Amino acid sequence: MKAGIADTTFARVNMGAIAIEELKKNASIRTERYTVPGIKDLPVAAKKLIEEQGCDIVMALGMVGGMPIDKTCAHEASLGLIFVQLMTNKHVIEVFIHEDEAENDKTLAELVDKRTREHALNVIELLLKPKLLVKRAGMGERQGGIDAGSLRL
Amino acid sequence: MKAGIADTTFARVNMGAIAIEELKKNASIRTERYTVPGIKDLPVAAKKLIEEQGCDIVMALGMVGGMPIDKTCAHEASLGLIFVQLMTNKHVIEVFIHEDEAENDKTLAELVDKRTREHALNVIELLLKPKLLVKRAGMGERQGGIDAGSLRL
Amino acid sequence: MKAGIADTTFARVNMGAIAIEELKKNASIRTERYTVPGIKDLPVAAKKLIEEQGCDIVMALGMVGGMPIDKTCAHEASLGLIFVQLMTNKHVIEVFIHEDEAENDKTLAELVDKRTREHALNVIELLLKPKLLVKRAGMGERQGGIDAGSLRL
Amino acid sequence: MKAGIADTTFARVNMGAIAIEELKKNASIRTERYTVPGIKDLPVAAKKLIEEQGCDIVMALGMVGGMPIDKTCAHEASLGLIFVQLMTNKHVIEVFIHEDEAENDKTLAELVDKRTREHALNVIELLLKPKLLVKRAGMGERQGGIDAGSLRL
Amino acid sequence: MKAGIADTTFARVNMGAIAIEELKKNASIRTERYTVPGIKDLPVAAKKLIEEQGCDIVMALGMVGGMPIDKTCAHEASLGLIFVQLMTNKHVIEVFIHEDEAENDKTLAELVDKRTREHALNVIELLLKPKLLVKRAGMGERQGGIDAGSLRL
Repeated sequence: MKAGIADTTFARVNMGAIAIEELKKNASIRTERYTVPGIKDLPVAAKKLIEEQGCDIVMALGMVGGMPIDKTCAHEASLGLIFVQLMTNKHVIEVFIHEDEAENDKTLAELVDKRTREHALNVIELLLKPKLLVKRAGMGERQGGIDAGSLRL
Repeated sequence: MKAGIADTTFARVNMGAIAIEELKKNASIRTERYTVPGIKDLPVAAKKLIEEQGCDIVMALGMVGGMPIDKTCAHEASLGLIFVQLMTNKHVIEVFIHEDEAENDKTLAELVDKRTREHALNVIELLLKPKLLVKRAGMGERQGGIDAGSLRL
Repeated sequence: MKAGIADTTFARVNMGAIAIEELKKNASIRTERYTVPGIKDLPVAAKKLIEEQGCDIVMALGMVGGMPIDKTCAHEASLGLIFVQLMTNKHVIEVFIHEDEAENDKTLAELVDKRTREHALNVIELLLKPKLLVKRAGMGERQGGIDAGSLRL
Repeated sequence: MKAGIADTTFARVNMGAIAIEELKKNASIRTERYTVPGIKDLPVAAKKLIEEQGCDIVMALGMVGGMPIDKTCAHEASLGLIFVQLMTNKHVIEVFIHEDEAENDKTLAELVDKRTREHALNVIELLLKPKLLVKRAGMGERQGGIDAGSLRL
Repeated sequence: MKAGIADTTFARVNMGAIAIEELKKNASIRTERYTVPGIKDLPVAAKKLIEEQGCDIVMALGMVGGMPIDKTCAHEASLGLIFVQLMTNKHVIEVFIHEDEAENDKTLAELVDKRTREHALNVIELLLKPKLLVKRAGMGERQGGIDAGSLRL
């Protein structure tokens, strides 16, 4: 099994390195890395990782600035990533962190690290043990934050 | 006939279990379940259920948080789900519940349960008795809430 | 010639019945009806009517609620309907009525009736006498309302 | 060479006639006209002009009302027109005029006329003399209005 | 290796000339230029450069006006550019400058020049030395502005 890792020079944290470290620590998985300038370059990078490098899944890692134009870019990139998946029948796990999610640089960096690692674990399960995810259905999980938990019926 | 059930670990209710229970209770239908992290992972999950697992229809079950970014994610997921349908000529019934639709956790959980069950019945009709839906055309039906009813001409 | 009629159980008027009545009254045209739960189910219904039922054109009939989420759903459905057309090279005439277009239930029902009928006539011309539409180019036509008329140059 | 001319009965000016007149006046070009009800019908009309009528380029002519719903329709139509181009590798030149661009009916009609004619000239160059456009790169051209001009470096 | 350069007559700076100069100065790369009227014409231009002119990568260069409609056009163009990439598995580097990013014409022209040149260098690396980009991952790079830099973990 091989996971593609697409990240950007725009991000302020080396997300690709974190993702690879977490994947390697928890599973026997090969990785292929591809760094592009910004998040709008991620969809084609993900598609090339799948179709040209034989990746079975991709993590698309990016940070989103705090301006309206940045939000629009993230929206466009997200739509592109969904289409990559529909064109390839492979999962592309989007790990985007918005700069305005954190109060300062320190908590922002921590959030990037935590969310990237937690999604790396999702990638391992999707690829190797998808039935484990069924057991966590409806648990209100939040990657990088405190889980919301499940509601009582 | 086989229905795919795609749900998420992000949701705060085990929507997949509810859908399967309601489907089994009302029809003789096989089901295949697929749990993914979040709603943006649902489109490819639905497409894989159709193309790799032979499902004739899919329920895409998800909860949507109350922040603007959550609304954007839901919009992106919805567009993806529409494209899955156009690529496969199969229905994917979207069952999304927005957290801000309910006043508290209790009514939210009830809404999730009710809407999921009512859409499960739609799935059965679409699959097994599509002509029954014609009889309900223009009735102002609202899954999970009180029907708006039909207008007098 | 065969026209597909896709409508919803969400709508509060039996739009499909009105469309079929108007089509039959004005032309010798076969019809095929398909009722789905909501407007986001219309794109795949339209595509199935064209590809599986051999329809030469489709009317996609729906009502849109007054909440922001309803507007988003309509936008998603509209994009899907445009893609159906590009995938099939057939017209899908969208007939959407927004609940906030009318002041009360009575005028809303009248608007639904009038717009549906006027678009049924468009469908007949697109299918049987497309050159007649050229004569009406630039006339400021408004289905269901008072025509805006043409401007003087 | 053959140019497709797609316009609408919704528009308040006979844009198709203006476009054809300007094309014929300035080049030896065949034209094929296709009138549809509204701007959301333009994408499939453009695709049919290219694929079924053999057009080498299309002008998609439309007017956009002043309500929010009209803006949404224009956005949807624009996306559709971009996809037609990507599916056919042919240019579709969008000529949309928003009603709120002008102060009164007279200036609106003039704007429609001017923008349509100036885009007709663009169509001729794209089709017959594309290298002439390179000479005008970065000149701040505005079809229908006063050119913004080029900035000094 | 061959880079396509797509730009517009709408832009107020000859972006294509700047991009070609910077590419030629820094690498032995062939270029093909294609100028279109506006940014919404860029997606098909990029696709034609790739599929009909054999370009291995494309720069899509454009300026975006300050009105809401201009923002919408840019959004539509961006989505189109992402789809071109997914249809061709080639990078299309979008270089858009919004008029409201700068305080006056002089700083706007400087921004256009700087961002175009910095993205030309990205194009060279993506094409010839993609592994160099990995070394710059997470560095908070900003083309045309001051880099945001990387965050400490």
